[in-house]
Amino acid sequence: MIIMRTDATEEDIQRVVGEIERSGLRADVSRGEFMTVIGPVGDERRLAFDHLATLPGVKEANMVETPYKLISREYARFFGEPGAHKTVTIGDVHLGNGEPVIIAGPCAVESRAQLMRIGEEVKRAGAHVLRGGVFKPRSSVHSFQGLGAAGTEGAEEALHWLRQAGDEYDMPVVTEVRGESMVELVARYVDIMHIGARNMYDQDLLVAVARQQKPVLLKRHFGASIEELLSFSEYIAAEGNKDIILCERGIVPMGKGRSFTRYTLDLAAVPVIHNETYLPVIVDPSHSTGRRDLIFSMSCAAVAAGADGLMIEAHYDPSEALVDGPQMVTPDELEEIIQACRRLHVLAKRT
Amino acid sequence: MIIMRTDATEEDIQRVVGEIERSGLRADVSRGEFMTVIGPVGDERRLAFDHLATLPGVKEANMVETPYKLISREYARFFGEPGAHKTVTIGDVHLGNGEPVIIAGPCAVESRAQLMRIGEEVKRAGAHVLRGGVFKPRSSVHSFQGLGAAGTEGAEEALHWLRQAGDEYDMPVVTEVRGESMVELVARYVDIMHIGARNMYDQDLLVAVARQQKPVLLKRHFGASIEELLSFSEYIAAEGNKDIILCERGIVPMGKGRSFTRYTLDLAAVPVIHNETYLPVIVDPSHSTGRRDLIFSMSCAAVAAGADGLMIEAHYDPSEALVDGPQMVTPDELEEIIQACRRLHVLAKRT
Amino acid sequence: MIIMRTDATEEDIQRVVGEIERSGLRADVSRGEFMTVIGPVGDERRLAFDHLATLPGVKEANMVETPYKLISREYARFFGEPGAHKTVTIGDVHLGNGEPVIIAGPCAVESRAQLMRIGEEVKRAGAHVLRGGVFKPRSSVHSFQGLGAAGTEGAEEALHWLRQAGDEYDMPVVTEVRGESMVELVARYVDIMHIGARNMYDQDLLVAVARQQKPVLLKRHFGASIEELLSFSEYIAAEGNKDIILCERGIVPMGKGRSFTRYTLDLAAVPVIHNETYLPVIVDPSHSTGRRDLIFSMSCAAVAAGADGLMIEAHYDPSEALVDGPQMVTPDELEEIIQACRRLHVLAKRT
Amino acid sequence: MIIMRTDATEEDIQRVVGEIERSGLRADVSRGEFMTVIGPVGDERRLAFDHLATLPGVKEANMVETPYKLISREYARFFGEPGAHKTVTIGDVHLGNGEPVIIAGPCAVESRAQLMRIGEEVKRAGAHVLRGGVFKPRSSVHSFQGLGAAGTEGAEEALHWLRQAGDEYDMPVVTEVRGESMVELVARYVDIMHIGARNMYDQDLLVAVARQQKPVLLKRHFGASIEELLSFSEYIAAEGNKDIILCERGIVPMGKGRSFTRYTLDLAAVPVIHNETYLPVIVDPSHSTGRRDLIFSMSCAAVAAGADGLMIEAHYDPSEALVDGPQMVTPDELEEIIQACRRLHVLAKRT
Repeated sequence: MIIMRTDATEEDIQRVVGEIERSGLRADVSRGEFMTVIGPVGDERRLAFDHLATLPGVKEANMVETPYKLISREYARFFGEPGAHKTVTIGDVHLGNGEPVIIAGPCAVESRAQLMRIGEEVKRAGAHVLRGGVFKPRSSVHSFQGLGAAGTEGAEEALHWLRQAGDEYDMPVVTEVRGESMVELVARYVDIMHIGARNMYDQDLLVAVARQQKPVLLKRHFGASIEELLSFSEYIAAEGNKDIILCERGIVPMGKGRSFTRYTLDLAAVPVIHNETYLPVIVDPSHSTGRRDLIFSMSCAAVAAGADGLMIEAHYDPSEALVDGPQMVTPDELEEIIQACRRLHVLAKRT
Repeated sequence: MIIMRTDATEEDIQRVVGEIERSGLRADVSRGEFMTVIGPVGDERRLAFDHLATLPGVKEANMVETPYKLISREYARFFGEPGAHKTVTIGDVHLGNGEPVIIAGPCAVESRAQLMRIGEEVKRAGAHVLRGGVFKPRSSVHSFQGLGAAGTEGAEEALHWLRQAGDEYDMPVVTEVRGESMVELVARYVDIMHIGARNMYDQDLLVAVARQQKPVLLKRHFGASIEELLSFSEYIAAEGNKDIILCERGIVPMGKGRSFTRYTLDLAAVPVIHNETYLPVIVDPSHSTGRRDLIFSMSCAAVAAGADGLMIEAHYDPSEALVDGPQMVTPDELEEIIQACRRLHVLAKRT
Repeated sequence: MIIMRTDATEEDIQRVVGEIERSGLRADVSRGEFMTVIGPVGDERRLAFDHLATLPGVKEANMVETPYKLISREYARFFGEPGAHKTVTIGDVHLGNGEPVIIAGPCAVESRAQLMRIGEEVKRAGAHVLRGGVFKPRSSVHSFQGLGAAGTEGAEEALHWLRQAGDEYDMPVVTEVRGESMVELVARYVDIMHIGARNMYDQDLLVAVARQQKPVLLKRHFGASIEELLSFSEYIAAEGNKDIILCERGIVPMGKGRSFTRYTLDLAAVPVIHNETYLPVIVDPSHSTGRRDLIFSMSCAAVAAGADGLMIEAHYDPSEALVDGPQMVTPDELEEIIQACRRLHVLAKRT
Repeated sequence: MIIMRTDATEEDIQRVVGEIERSGLRADVSRGEFMTVIGPVGDERRLAFDHLATLPGVKEANMVETPYKLISREYARFFGEPGAHKTVTIGDVHLGNGEPVIIAGPCAVESRAQLMRIGEEVKRAGAHVLRGGVFKPRSSVHSFQGLGAAGTEGAEEALHWLRQAGDEYDMPVVTEVRGESMVELVARYVDIMHIGARNMYDQDLLVAVARQQKPVLLKRHFGASIEELLSFSEYIAAEGNKDIILCERGIVPMGKGRSFTRYTLDLAAVPVIHNETYLPVIVDPSHSTGRRDLIFSMSCAAVAAGADGLMIEAHYDPSEALVDGPQMVTPDELEEIIQACRRLHVLAKRT
């Protein structure tokens, strides 16, 4: 990490970038309010930090050996994120450092009518962002893969509905992107690009999505450690895109015998990620539990643990949903959850 | 499960018990305010439920095939626990169905002075029950095994201090019991018998402890599923002791790479256990995280998830503690946690 | 699954395919020596099997509800794979139903000279297929990503060396493909397309690779169950490509404390996969253990468990390797392993 | 670890022991053919090794910080186990450093007739040691707990049958011991004391069993790391009992979806344990797979991995067994397994 002096010139910055690139690495340049920080992307052992420290405009040059340095709190500290925690701004929605942001909507987009109705109802319940799946990354090729699976045309129609519902009810929209070839299409319609848990390990998708320069929502794979989530996030940051929202959605349950939840929600991930990085982190109580009756409790717990937001699946008639019906809440339940979370949010802070 | 009619006589009850015993099973008799329920202990397939249903005083006789029937909500429903949730009473402390009960104290008892000082300070911070380890079930035979390891005399002295500190500051006391031969000794001094996570699978210890007819605090093993925790609790209930407090204290972390917490706290266990059983459940944020800086967040999250209490390690000088210093909070931090939890407790209820 | 009569005409087959497609599914047509089997791809509940059974040329029409039906042993049974186990043929190499096939070579291609020398030495040691990584799917963006990461030109040069080494020493070659955009390029140079463990969940990569109609080597993700491996393999089979080689390479170690191996090799996966599917399965003792001193034992154990082959990393000077040096064996060690495996292979069969 | 000079006197040894005990630790004295080694039990940081090194008769005095030092290969090296691998001798059976020892018999002892018949048949099949469960440590209190659960009398009768069957067919016998109060009773009847996986963490049982000074067979808990298995073995060694046989029997399966085996057999544990300790290690393919059809393959694989023996459940009529029928092999299958393992044993050695 190379910290430039406040009076460093653009020429000074470019000289450092040039030196880094000559050693076969890339350079991530973060221009903060007060300072510019340059993060080398690649194996830092190939850089001569002693030499870099002597270049004009350089204040400090240090090797950082963690696999996630561009998203680390230390990196943020220098360019002036307040309290070293980033707020990701999506239209009028500010995610991070404030009241929990609620992302809600159906698991899968099924029709224009379904989406418009759910959009209206979750908005009324207090949601801030509308979600809806167009491409579903299912484990089985024989399961419904979302309307997007029917080809570009079907995908575009569903994305169009999502955009319309968002515009109609004044909410930014988010959908999951699957397959590098679909990235540009999705980016044309949505405000947040969502990479699902099963695709967390897909470095090439991460890079392609990052390059759209839109906020990215990255979910932790259900077999991944927190360190892996952070290491793979760094693939996004290394493309110069720091508008990353991390999402805890549960890990594979352990032990013999019946599992009462689909996954084990690891809520300590929330304060841990806040401690390690400057990125906001949200929680998905729907996929983690797979049970409508647990979503109220786990939403409250997530906010009490410090989550910057929640992603909740909602449907006016859960029994009708094509995918994941048992984990959807109704708009009324969603409203109850949102109100409890607002009350809890303030109280769970240290005095 | 055999549900007796409200007008069933003692003779009726004994006739059912006799039939069960003749089939090689034992009978657990729970006398509620309105009704008596008899739970067979053993393989119910060996019972003739059709025949039992015809006996005088019997209202219903049904086979229950789960491995935890004596602690199930269904079982409680008949003998009148309010809302099918049990309150375990320890002196003036009521654990379950109310404000979260805070159990606090040092990981290990080190001296009389240490314990008296911590007792005083955690009481002032708002704790309800005093904890202190006398027998430590360590993974390594080469680690400090607690003062109790020095033999009966050392154990008794440490237990005596614990009792004194509890009496002095008006708190019931709890300590972990290790080894069947120590059970009676421990029972003479403490109010709650604690079975540690590593010993959850020790059926014979469970039975020996249960027979003391004192409240039992059973921790989930770090490799156990919730179903296993419930199945092993049933060994306690089958001895006729239903004053069982379950404790979630984290499971082994998953995935490659560095682990930021010692264990993964599975907070969904709280509503799941409330759903499956009538037993109260508490959370141990100290062992699960192993990190003092995460205990505030995870305590708040546990209470928001519905925990009936918390077990928190506290020490006036964490750096001095012989065992687990990095996870102890100071009395001041404990007070802050207790106050936040009180505020949160009410708000995390459904309206 | 629709089993056609031996005298079914092409017209009969096309009629069934047409009916399936009209219901919104795709049809996989497998023409065996004696029989043709048609496997619907998609949600079979949307098909009228009663009706399909009445069409001309149809012998049987049954719903199969597992997520992996096109690769199941039952499916193979009808079109005549001997013993319902497939042999994948790559040039002169026959993988499955015979002596274990040894795939060996360096973890990463580093230079033409390195690759030619290793090619020569592993051939002499008895290897059948040459491996060499051009695109490395690393957890950290800051780690060496393989020569392919430098862009199409670097990738093509490294692939060209691999091809040359294979041709020079008369071995088919295999490399890992990462990123949908690289699939066609890789397919031009190699004989087996390898999808790495981290990318097992990348459905779109699976589909893109399958469409090249070359044998695909799919590794189990280190957090995946066997059922997930099979479900994701089905994405390949559903493209009409049944030349699939599965690879067990270890799952994440469990439990507290130091891990003596990088992963836990799950050798029961070998007979389980042979039982569930007709696909051959190989084992990678190098990545699973991460330890050169365990590779001999685990190779022997894999072959004794029935593995159809092994994938072993080898280098003339492990200490020099850019990636994974500690797990590479020398050509001499490789030879010792291959000879032991040949001896064991015959003896581990049931008499 | 304190290594005494070959000419050290008994007085020299006792002086070292005395110094260790004065520091509050215990001393394990191992007298080898050539040398005596003294291993302190407890926190070695409390010993003054510099001072110990100056005592008469002391050759070397070094701190060893692993949690398993008394069972480590380094410890064995000095007192002359050949190749630092121990052979545990039980009557005429030598376990370790030779042909794999086969322990076979029913899961549970059900009757005298059953046991005598199985004893005869497994002996004829080639087994060396007879097993039979008297106390079954079941997860559910409602499951059959073995004949031993009926009380001391029932236990003693079943143990007596086991002893008779062993004597009749000239095999040492092994049974699982559960509950500290049963230890002495069991020790009177059996040749090997077996501690089951669920009780691996029960330090007090380990100590009580170790003190019987009979060979101990300790199974790895299904949630335990290898390091934990070794750390808990050390509790046995610390009682001066080094006749320890470790047993790999599978860990909890990972990942979503159906599990094809009851546990995941971790065969790399075999060479790892051989590398870390001087103890022999056997494998239990019955409990790990839970499937009769996989036992042949996994037995072959275990022996190829270097296992010193196998523990296999066998019954003349698996369908009749009260416990674990689906995983039992018939005597004929056992014979086939034993013969394959004998053939494999020699071939899986390095040349």
